[in-house]
Amino acid sequence: MKLATIRTAAGNRAVRVDDDTAVETGDADVRALLERPDWAAHAAAAAGPVHAVGGLDYAPLVPAPEKIICVGLNYRDHVLEMGNELPAYPTVFAKFAPALVGAHDDIELPAISDKVDYEAELVVVIGRPVRHADAETARAAIAGYTVLNDVSVRDFQNRTKQFLQGKTFEHSTPLGPVLVTPDELPEGGWAISSSIDGEVMQDSTTDQLVFGAVELIEYLSAIVTLNPGDVIATGTPGGVGHARTPPRYLTDGVELVTSIAGVGECRNTCRKAP
Amino acid sequence: MKLATIRTAAGNRAVRVDDDTAVETGDADVRALLERPDWAAHAAAAAGPVHAVGGLDYAPLVPAPEKIICVGLNYRDHVLEMGNELPAYPTVFAKFAPALVGAHDDIELPAISDKVDYEAELVVVIGRPVRHADAETARAAIAGYTVLNDVSVRDFQNRTKQFLQGKTFEHSTPLGPVLVTPDELPEGGWAISSSIDGEVMQDSTTDQLVFGAVELIEYLSAIVTLNPGDVIATGTPGGVGHARTPPRYLTDGVELVTSIAGVGECRNTCRKAP
Repeated sequence: MKLATIRTAAGNRAVRVDDDTAVETGDADVRALLERPDWAAHAAAAAGPVHAVGGLDYAPLVPAPEKIICVGLNYRDHVLEMGNELPAYPTVFAKFAPALVGAHDDIELPAISDKVDYEAELVVVIGRPVRHADAETARAAIAGYTVLNDVSVRDFQNRTKQFLQGKTFEHSTPLGPVLVTPDELPEGGWAISSSIDGEVMQDSTTDQLVFGAVELIEYLSAIVTLNPGDVIATGTPGGVGHARTPPRYLTDGVELVTSIAGVGECRNTCRKAP
Repeated sequence: MKLATIRTAAGNRAVRVDDDTAVETGDADVRALLERPDWAAHAAAAAGPVHAVGGLDYAPLVPAPEKIICVGLNYRDHVLEMGNELPAYPTVFAKFAPALVGAHDDIELPAISDKVDYEAELVVVIGRPVRHADAETARAAIAGYTVLNDVSVRDFQNRTKQFLQGKTFEHSTPLGPVLVTPDELPEGGWAISSSIDGEVMQDSTTDQLVFGAVELIEYLSAIVTLNPGDVIATGTPGGVGHARTPPRYLTDGVELVTSIAGVGECRNTCRKAP
């Protein structure tokens, strides 16, 4: 099953996305849907207004999560190629909800930086409250997967030792377009890539993750309750612009495409703020 | 004027707190109240159910802020005594809402750490949406001030370079009891302290802040819109337990008191989770 949050004339609405049509579930967005203990059955039985898939206006998949948790240094090939040791613990930081945009919205490049970079990431979305999870409970707490680009303003990220200020610029971070439930996905690694105007910049597979979705939920739920609609961005593979020689940053007018095979694709035009 | 979020038999309620009584404003909590453009007039005219101040059960002042932004390395005396230079930019990181507890609630010490530390902090609460603020706009966006203890699980904080995982443990962080509007407070430095079972551990004044409330709002609003109910914790002065010889951590049963003169006091018993 695929779920999305779309913009309608009446406001945001959660929908189940089928082959050609999307049907409203009666919830304001995917977080509200996932807060129903029976969300999967509810979405499967949805019988609200119907939209053509081709005309959908995607909001951020979860417009206002309680938590956006981002993981750094989590692709094995990238860690090793940089000459680093594999980490013993996940590196985690946050974003705030106003950073999010929809899967086809413009990405806003702030006027105060010329060092805006891309980071293609697989996201796991939480489907039930979970604390102190073991592996089985963690797996059962996964509602599904989606795509995010952890767009990063590198000069702000590196102004201090804490990444947050470079990671949470307004309207920087596409999330979506759809949540895909685990039963629709194959086991094992999924191809993950980013491209700028058709030129491939990142190209890896998710079997290179040091800490996978289940391990991250176990680890994080030892710290704090994870709740429905929480978003965990699992880190990015090699190929980011900041690490290139010369560096390659996002500029006004370019199209950034972020893809994960079977999960989805964000396609966003970058626009420099005045 | 003083505002609070209290727990009632009917759920959380925003109240205006007067000398002996607190009157409900008709809002579910202080964030919902502050989202009214006319919140100050609305709260001043509140005429809902009345409670005796002595019997109030304080929820976290803002139970679910869109953003909890924490600032590090922001007390001049502490930075200099540690042999560091004053920072050019604020160091900022996040907490998530489930970390919060009320001003008189128990603080939960996680079973998986014995290195839980205290950090008394002045908090500024945002009262209107603000982006790209100059000093005047920033000042006008301040709803008021409150007290927070940025309780920090030091071993988790230092597992990686990103602080978040040590800063957002469930039920760790008292916030409140009240928001005090700026007109009720004197200009200049306010005494800030923390104590454990009556022994003073931190004792400074807020005129030691490197980046004050107005500068922080200017800086942060260049990155992202600040919204009503957003919480900015402005950093802690010297005297934390982790920097002592020997270190001094919070233990089961101790009472942690966090005070800022004129703003308020959190008084919390620490309880080790089973």
